[in-house]
Amino acid sequence: MAIAGGSGSTVWDFEGNEYLDFSSQLVNVNIGHQHPKVIAAIQAQAALLATVAPAHANEMRAWAAELVLSHAPASFEKVFFTNGGADANENAIRMARLVTGRDKVISHYRSYHGNTGAAIVATGDWRRMPNEYARGHVHAFGPYLYRSEFWAETAEQECERALRHLERVIQSEGPETIAALLLETIPGTAGVLVPPAGYLRGVRALADHYGILLILDEVMAGFGRTGEWLALDAFDVVPDLITFAKGVNSGYVPAGGVIINSQIAHFFDERVFPGGLTYSGHPLAAASIVATLTAMDDEGVIENARTIGADVLGPGLGVLAQKHDVIGEVRGTGVFWAVELVSDRASREPVDAGTMAKVKSELLGRGLLPFTSENRIHVVPPAVVTPAEAARGLAIIDDALAEIA
Amino acid sequence: MAIAGGSGSTVWDFEGNEYLDFSSQLVNVNIGHQHPKVIAAIQAQAALLATVAPAHANEMRAWAAELVLSHAPASFEKVFFTNGGADANENAIRMARLVTGRDKVISHYRSYHGNTGAAIVATGDWRRMPNEYARGHVHAFGPYLYRSEFWAETAEQECERALRHLERVIQSEGPETIAALLLETIPGTAGVLVPPAGYLRGVRALADHYGILLILDEVMAGFGRTGEWLALDAFDVVPDLITFAKGVNSGYVPAGGVIINSQIAHFFDERVFPGGLTYSGHPLAAASIVATLTAMDDEGVIENARTIGADVLGPGLGVLAQKHDVIGEVRGTGVFWAVELVSDRASREPVDAGTMAKVKSELLGRGLLPFTSENRIHVVPPAVVTPAEAARGLAIIDDALAEIA
Ligand SMILES: Cc1ncc(COP(=O)(O)O)c(C=O)c1O
Ligand SMILES: Cc1ncc(COP(=O)(O)O)c(C=O)c1O
Repeated sequence: MAIAGGSGSTVWDFEGNEYLDFSSQLVNVNIGHQHPKVIAAIQAQAALLATVAPAHANEMRAWAAELVLSHAPASFEKVFFTNGGADANENAIRMARLVTGRDKVISHYRSYHGNTGAAIVATGDWRRMPNEYARGHVHAFGPYLYRSEFWAETAEQECERALRHLERVIQSEGPETIAALLLETIPGTAGVLVPPAGYLRGVRALADHYGILLILDEVMAGFGRTGEWLALDAFDVVPDLITFAKGVNSGYVPAGGVIINSQIAHFFDERVFPGGLTYSGHPLAAASIVATLTAMDDEGVIENARTIGADVLGPGLGVLAQKHDVIGEVRGTGVFWAVELVSDRASREPVDAGTMAKVKSELLGRGLLPFTSENRIHVVPPAVVTPAEAARGLAIIDDALAEIA
Repeated sequence: MAIAGGSGSTVWDFEGNEYLDFSSQLVNVNIGHQHPKVIAAIQAQAALLATVAPAHANEMRAWAAELVLSHAPASFEKVFFTNGGADANENAIRMARLVTGRDKVISHYRSYHGNTGAAIVATGDWRRMPNEYARGHVHAFGPYLYRSEFWAETAEQECERALRHLERVIQSEGPETIAALLLETIPGTAGVLVPPAGYLRGVRALADHYGILLILDEVMAGFGRTGEWLALDAFDVVPDLITFAKGVNSGYVPAGGVIINSQIAHFFDERVFPGGLTYSGHPLAAASIVATLTAMDDEGVIENARTIGADVLGPGLGVLAQKHDVIGEVRGTGVFWAVELVSDRASREPVDAGTMAKVKSELLGRGLLPFTSENRIHVVPPAVVTPAEAARGLAIIDDALAEIA
């Protein structure tokens, strides 16, 4: 499919067919397509100064850092900019290793952290398998009640057992060998696995107890996706490092980064951080971040995502789950939802690839651009989606599921 | 220093002081600052469609790939886009490992390949030291007659012995364990180490003999820097993979990539390549590549770089070397030169950091923005630099060296 243009939650192809973008592309266009203020800011910055080396001060970079920090917990002090989410995680991992003098990084199976050297091996899903070229990565299971790895039957049990499992992995690997726990606040690509209340608080307690740093990956969940500025805002947890990309500027210009707490920032005041990319803090990227975060604030985009989740997508997907036996579970928050399709509700057997291909083409045929992964439809429209558009998207999903039934 | 704006080979700060940019920032602004056609192309693409997921076809991406391929040897068939040079090398390394089923990558000491997981460990200079978190990287010495690692006295000897050394490392590591040789065509950051005639041809022969892939890193040397479209054009060598970034769009938008030969491209026709980044083939980046390569072609930018090197910088730096005892060696081609400063010509002892700081501030004080590294001034203006500007830059270097003498 060739996309010719877009506006808000809509894209169109070269034949003029319109689609409701329920993918936000790769779950990044939080502010919608072609937001006029962001486009204007990119054009203005291009006219002024497109590129400059990271060593030279740049007003837009400083301003972008300030705005990013304004949405992080108070203990955060600096921002290290990168070109995307993978290199944000590379650099966060490296900071943790240098600060702690330790090597191992524990992350979750069912996670995605990007596709460069360390990021892809931190990634827990099958994609890392043919890419095992970094060292020091260990994986543990995270909470996922619908397909519990811990024989749990309630959210409380899942939470408690996942924490117990994580602690046993930490103890068995040797806490003194572990630099960081790297977790998506809400694992996204793996299925919008909203953690049970208390899980991230428990992880923080384990990190503190064993002197391990906590990195939260907010690349997909951050900057509006969950109906919060950062997904962690809903979980009463303060990590040591936060990685971001996607939503921070909706990907209009490649950009990402690491938000660094004061303690780690001060560590690198005294030592040079051996990182940095030619395009770190690129002016065009910085200008798009400033314009995006300003517009999101001015236009109540976060509140919109929250309301859409609470009033339209949450209840609406609940109704679909009642109606369609093929839906095994619905979970999510804000504009960040997953619908698991199963061939059998009792066994929870995922539908096969053929069924998913059919679902996808039914959705496309009805004018909805979907994000699908394994046996799931991820319902991830832009955070600016209107109630009417959200309802229309749900109606299309309803029809498509009726068709394949 | 805060750069407020720029045009061609000139930048200015917020006080209105102008500087001749003899750094090209991080040796990337080959087409000069704020080229009107590239700026206009970015603005137009922003107005049309700023971002789209890599899975969706995109006209600009296809066109950018076509133009990039048009400057590569005939055996190349596909382009894999990334966000910069480091992730280009990450992906090239991964392709080589998957194609060969082998693990090790040999690169040079005195090299720079970027600052993510595998790229920084492939890097040969001190910067990789606190970053040793990838595996399978081996380093060998490359040719550098001025500071020979092989007790050589002529370029022919240096070439022959460097090849012998490389072959001994290959044999000692075990050829069947080596996926790729990863070399900068001309090592840049390490000191513009133009290889002797025949070296790269010899490396190609070793790669063929032992069934190892050859990756040439053209991130800094490519797209105009050497007075050729690709630096390899001057060396009669055809690698299996080529990595690029910087000059391809002068860094106006973060972009890089891997140019892939037919054989490797076909390998991945049959298997999914487990790579890809959210912003691979980003429309804004693609539009800037198309505009940059088109303008470079239309305006004879490559020819200009070649002429400036042959007629102004080469001879001019030669004159300075005659005049200033502090100059140990001058080497380069096109707009890609290094001047080694030594405290003693006989011992070739590098000048100390204090002297370099003084040189740098003398150059800046005279209105030249320099690129310095260790004991070297890299003379790396944009490829659009005029003869008058190049001569003015040389005169400033002349004055600054006279001042510190
Ligand atoms: C949670 C998470 N981290 C990191 C990444 C990698 O980001 P990028 O593709 O920009 O490198 C992604 C991309 O989907 C992601 O979802
Ligand atoms: C030869 C070479 N390779 C790779 C890189 C890394 O490029 P980037 O900083 O865009 O990741 C550089 C940057 O200077 C380089 O000179």
